[in-house]
Amino acid sequence: MADILHRVGIKSSLDDTYKALSTLDGLRAWWTTDTQGESQIGKVIRFRFGSAGFDMKVLELDPAGRVLWQVVEGPDEWIGTKISFDLKKEDDFTIILFRHTGWKEAVEFMHHCSTKWGVFMLSLKSFVETGKGAPFPNDVKIDNWN
Amino acid sequence: MADILHRVGIKSSLDDTYKALSTLDGLRAWWTTDTQGESQIGKVIRFRFGSAGFDMKVLELDPAGRVLWQVVEGPDEWIGTKISFDLKKEDDFTIILFRHTGWKEAVEFMHHCSTKWGVFMLSLKSFVETGKGAPFPNDVKIDNWN
Repeated sequence: MADILHRVGIKSSLDDTYKALSTLDGLRAWWTTDTQGESQIGKVIRFRFGSAGFDMKVLELDPAGRVLWQVVEGPDEWIGTKISFDLKKEDDFTIILFRHTGWKEAVEFMHHCSTKWGVFMLSLKSFVETGKGAPFPNDVKIDNWN
Repeated sequence: MADILHRVGIKSSLDDTYKALSTLDGLRAWWTTDTQGESQIGKVIRFRFGSAGFDMKVLELDPAGRVLWQVVEGPDEWIGTKISFDLKKEDDFTIILFRHTGWKEAVEFMHHCSTKWGVFMLSLKSFVETGKGAPFPNDVKIDNWN
């Protein structure tokens, strides 16, 4: 099993950061503008990037600082993996520890997704700090897989 | 053992990308301006970020598309870990598969380093494509650990 890990610090409140991770409007502002479904425990959120995308079942939603999803539809490598965001205050920052866990193998696609998640964590940081993120389709392109 | 993985695609030749990874001037242009030592097999390159930094022993230097270092001085978590860059042509891109392998544990510092390596891979991409990277001290800051 292999994991993707990231850490960013956001100069904002934990509440505002949590909203960006737990509401559809928040998610649309930094990951993909095409986000549908319901951000409630047991429900599914559908993230689309043109014709491709991911469906996430919401497993945990804790305003004290944790969001956990499980992938229920998407590329084979993603099915069953889990994505978590753990928040805490440190200095003037809300720190996010991001984890995309449960990859069966460290395939080349995982390398791509690792870099891309980093790019989206910076989009999230920018959105919460300035009001402007860079969600799909205006996301930073990193390679020939976009 | 845990690994940091990244994948970026650079719209440039494999040779130019390799130079950015295998020469001191190349490394200074995207990772840290304070880079000293010798980029030769068996020699050590010293990367400094203010008072902190890493010394890397060069284990492989293959113009066909591979650079491998081992960390010989630096933070405890980095000592003994290996950093590799594997290059290949795909479409109009030189693809870099980056790996920082051999972490003993997935500590919080590893989360930070994962995001930071992603930022530096984008600095490398920018440098090779446009001539302008964002090496330390002008690197993108991601959290309270910088």
